[in-house]
Amino acid sequence: MEKIKSKFDIFRQKVNIIIYGTNTVSGRLFDLVLLGVILTSVIAVMLETVQGFDVKYHKELIIIEWIITIFFTIEYILRIISIKKPIKYIFSFYGIVDLLATLPMYLSLFYLGTSVLTVLRAVRLLRLFKILKYKQFTNQSINLKEALAASKGKILIFMYFMLVSSVIIGSLMYVVEGKAGGFTSIPISIYWTIVTLTTVGYGDISPITPLGQAIASFVMIMGYGIIAVPTGIVSAEFASYTGNKTPPKNSNTCPHCGAEGHESNAKFCYRCGGQL
Amino acid sequence: MEKIKSKFDIFRQKVNIIIYGTNTVSGRLFDLVLLGVILTSVIAVMLETVQGFDVKYHKELIIIEWIITIFFTIEYILRIISIKKPIKYIFSFYGIVDLLATLPMYLSLFYLGTSVLTVLRAVRLLRLFKILKYKQFTNQSINLKEALAASKGKILIFMYFMLVSSVIIGSLMYVVEGKAGGFTSIPISIYWTIVTLTTVGYGDISPITPLGQAIASFVMIMGYGIIAVPTGIVSAEFASYTGNKTPPKNSNTCPHCGAEGHESNAKFCYRCGGQL
Amino acid sequence: MEKIKSKFDIFRQKVNIIIYGTNTVSGRLFDLVLLGVILTSVIAVMLETVQGFDVKYHKELIIIEWIITIFFTIEYILRIISIKKPIKYIFSFYGIVDLLATLPMYLSLFYLGTSVLTVLRAVRLLRLFKILKYKQFTNQSINLKEALAASKGKILIFMYFMLVSSVIIGSLMYVVEGKAGGFTSIPISIYWTIVTLTTVGYGDISPITPLGQAIASFVMIMGYGIIAVPTGIVSAEFASYTGNKTPPKNSNTCPHCGAEGHESNAKFCYRCGGQL
Amino acid sequence: MEKIKSKFDIFRQKVNIIIYGTNTVSGRLFDLVLLGVILTSVIAVMLETVQGFDVKYHKELIIIEWIITIFFTIEYILRIISIKKPIKYIFSFYGIVDLLATLPMYLSLFYLGTSVLTVLRAVRLLRLFKILKYKQFTNQSINLKEALAASKGKILIFMYFMLVSSVIIGSLMYVVEGKAGGFTSIPISIYWTIVTLTTVGYGDISPITPLGQAIASFVMIMGYGIIAVPTGIVSAEFASYTGNKTPPKNSNTCPHCGAEGHESNAKFCYRCGGQL
Repeated sequence: MEKIKSKFDIFRQKVNIIIYGTNTVSGRLFDLVLLGVILTSVIAVMLETVQGFDVKYHKELIIIEWIITIFFTIEYILRIISIKKPIKYIFSFYGIVDLLATLPMYLSLFYLGTSVLTVLRAVRLLRLFKILKYKQFTNQSINLKEALAASKGKILIFMYFMLVSSVIIGSLMYVVEGKAGGFTSIPISIYWTIVTLTTVGYGDISPITPLGQAIASFVMIMGYGIIAVPTGIVSAEFASYTGNKTPPKNSNTCPHCGAEGHESNAKFCYRCGGQL
Repeated sequence: MEKIKSKFDIFRQKVNIIIYGTNTVSGRLFDLVLLGVILTSVIAVMLETVQGFDVKYHKELIIIEWIITIFFTIEYILRIISIKKPIKYIFSFYGIVDLLATLPMYLSLFYLGTSVLTVLRAVRLLRLFKILKYKQFTNQSINLKEALAASKGKILIFMYFMLVSSVIIGSLMYVVEGKAGGFTSIPISIYWTIVTLTTVGYGDISPITPLGQAIASFVMIMGYGIIAVPTGIVSAEFASYTGNKTPPKNSNTCPHCGAEGHESNAKFCYRCGGQL
Repeated sequence: MEKIKSKFDIFRQKVNIIIYGTNTVSGRLFDLVLLGVILTSVIAVMLETVQGFDVKYHKELIIIEWIITIFFTIEYILRIISIKKPIKYIFSFYGIVDLLATLPMYLSLFYLGTSVLTVLRAVRLLRLFKILKYKQFTNQSINLKEALAASKGKILIFMYFMLVSSVIIGSLMYVVEGKAGGFTSIPISIYWTIVTLTTVGYGDISPITPLGQAIASFVMIMGYGIIAVPTGIVSAEFASYTGNKTPPKNSNTCPHCGAEGHESNAKFCYRCGGQL
Repeated sequence: MEKIKSKFDIFRQKVNIIIYGTNTVSGRLFDLVLLGVILTSVIAVMLETVQGFDVKYHKELIIIEWIITIFFTIEYILRIISIKKPIKYIFSFYGIVDLLATLPMYLSLFYLGTSVLTVLRAVRLLRLFKILKYKQFTNQSINLKEALAASKGKILIFMYFMLVSSVIIGSLMYVVEGKAGGFTSIPISIYWTIVTLTTVGYGDISPITPLGQAIASFVMIMGYGIIAVPTGIVSAEFASYTGNKTPPKNSNTCPHCGAEGHESNAKFCYRCGGQL
């Protein structure tokens, strides 16, 4: 009995390394296979929504969907078995996503129309970000994360400013333009303002009165100008990370007092005065 | 009589702290409540303009509007009572906005159709910027303000250049394209130029002659390129603020050898080892 | 006779200071008046093209046009008289623009329809850039100019790359999409490519085949990504100018050898060793 | 026999210098001629697709096409003859492009409709990048290349994130909007997401349900904000290259007083006046 338990433990450990490992051969191979299966599942779901394709290959698509569903089910069970704190995993974001990726097909056996939920599988693509934990990417992605984290405060203030501006300008345009130009309600006008401020400009709604066009011009120039703000913030943060390719500090530690961080041209310790 | 006056003074002081305070518990609580009420009022005004919703819940919306109007009225009176220079407040930007936020509903009792003015309440959202005075945000927002203030001169020259370009290009396109492509007048052509230069591109007006399309291509590439200018200006300013995070160097010169550029925490010269 | 000539010389000198001066009271006053007249002329030309307005106020507009034309004529003559090298001025860019701003109205007396050429007056708005020579703006605009001049080389290479890409992608889309989606010829396809690459996106032409949409997606992401290049170039240049708020150079000239550009803390000339 | 071979060798060498040289007179002249011919060929192909033009000048265009084809054929043969490793050239990217630029016209003799392949000539425009190897441009283009190469890692992570986001948001919009707004399949929805995220905004597909418009607003603000990321990355890289332009300081220390940081052209110490 004990033997079986210890054997099971070894099995669990092995599976854990395969599924959760990032810098082992088997771990990477598993990631690659998983990536392939997720991509296949996403493409299959996509193709199902393309009228012409679905009519022709409906049977094949259903078969592929079932194979993927079974693969995902096994993977889900293995994930639960091999992890140390299964409860925590099940209720984590990824745990829920993994479950939701398998359920729709089973549900479709009982309820018609639930197969549309298979689009939820697209969320599993987020799993692909696991590769950012690979050794060769960590530096790059840590840099990215740190720079973005440092800009977060300023970016939030900026977003706040943009939202408030959108509501005010949207309300104004609703009064100025009226229903003729497509500004049928304030929410629609705010939608238009965001479309314009972000320089997307669909053109489904566009001002037709001279005053409305004048305000729109102002909004566009404003949107064109203030894109400089988030860009400037993020650029500055990146620059402060990239710029610090500045002279690498003398990596020697002071042999007398242990102080570090000496200038590269320092000959004496800045703390104890001892020769380096 | 005096007692009443002094009691009123204490009341005024308390109200002042609640309404104008930014770093006290009661001040923040008031801000939170005000924020909630302003948001509710803005959403109510929005929903009123949505045809389907208004028909269904017209009565409820009117009731909410009146509750908010009464709240704003009381707030407005308290603001006047509790501040030291009420006249100055009344004629300040925020004073006028606060008044305009209450008036429309009262006016709507006498004049039909004035309730449309309630959209002015959206301007009260600017009050939300008060949170930028909170301790945790001051650093971020001061940085933002300083960087933007420093770039103002260059940005203005740039805007000036863009406006002049728009007028010249707009006039040119009016002559080249004529009325067929929608370029019915010079102001409309200028509007099109701004739509294009800022890369918004509604498509309500677009050139149809080969020459017009060639000029448009040039304008687009120009617009795409010159967005680099404001972005560059603001980025540079942010960088000069962000970059200066490095520990300020010790400004003392070594009294023994005259070396400069010591680390701020240095006690001994890095060149000659003499005590600083 | 001589007296008259010397009096005329004094008059010429005075006029020269008024017209060409940038840092005198009379010079600035003249700039202000000129700015006003140019703006008026541009607005008058604009309004003339607005159908509804022109019908109502045609007479008034014509009168204003003639007053401005006469003002411009006098100004043009004074410019020629007061400048030292009149020939050089007449054939300079501004000289030609100034002349073209007066001619159309005179021509319209003989030929019908030439009044459309009055739009050329918009080019006179470039005169407004004279204010950049004002003391308070010179620093800012010199900075701007230097940064842009320094980025010119890289920007040109970038533009070159964009044009070549546009031609290649445009040709490709012509073959892929065909006439159905509006890609009726290669020049039109190139026009579409520029509209897309610069993220303007009118929507007058847009791909309808799956392959076309896939290529379009690629072009958009490319356009979205490579906007980083000019922005990065210009940002870096601005940063290198803004960052150099580094110690302003010692503005003193060496009294011994005339060398300039001494460090602010220099006590001896770096060229001749003489005391500053 | 040997004489002929050695003569042929000299001829090969000469041709090699003309065709592949970048910093000789004959090499540049050849580049100029080639540039002219390629441009002519591209313009000819373009004009052929313009209905009105082709009808009028069909004969002339065909003649030009044949002249260019013969020129390209000769050039292709000379390239093969004069290069040391002809096989390597033939199967290189440029080798294949060069061949494809000549084939279509010959094919059109046997198969109708293959002349459409002449658009492949546009790819030959890439040859124009050879000028980047000219002395005066190398600095600029090396800078550009290095900065872009250094940002590649981060840019790829960013692109990856954008693609995954597009698939997830596209799937979501397909479910939310349905076929009414034009979101007929998931691939189309992803296409729309890219059009919106990159702020292109054609408007051929645009959301019409309130929820769809809310999500679209979020996508736009996201797209508007995250353009800061690639821009920031590239800006930072450029900055780290550009910033290092400041005149390299004279690395000599003053032998008299030990002062450092002399200007590169300094002959005397700025602090003690001693000769350097």
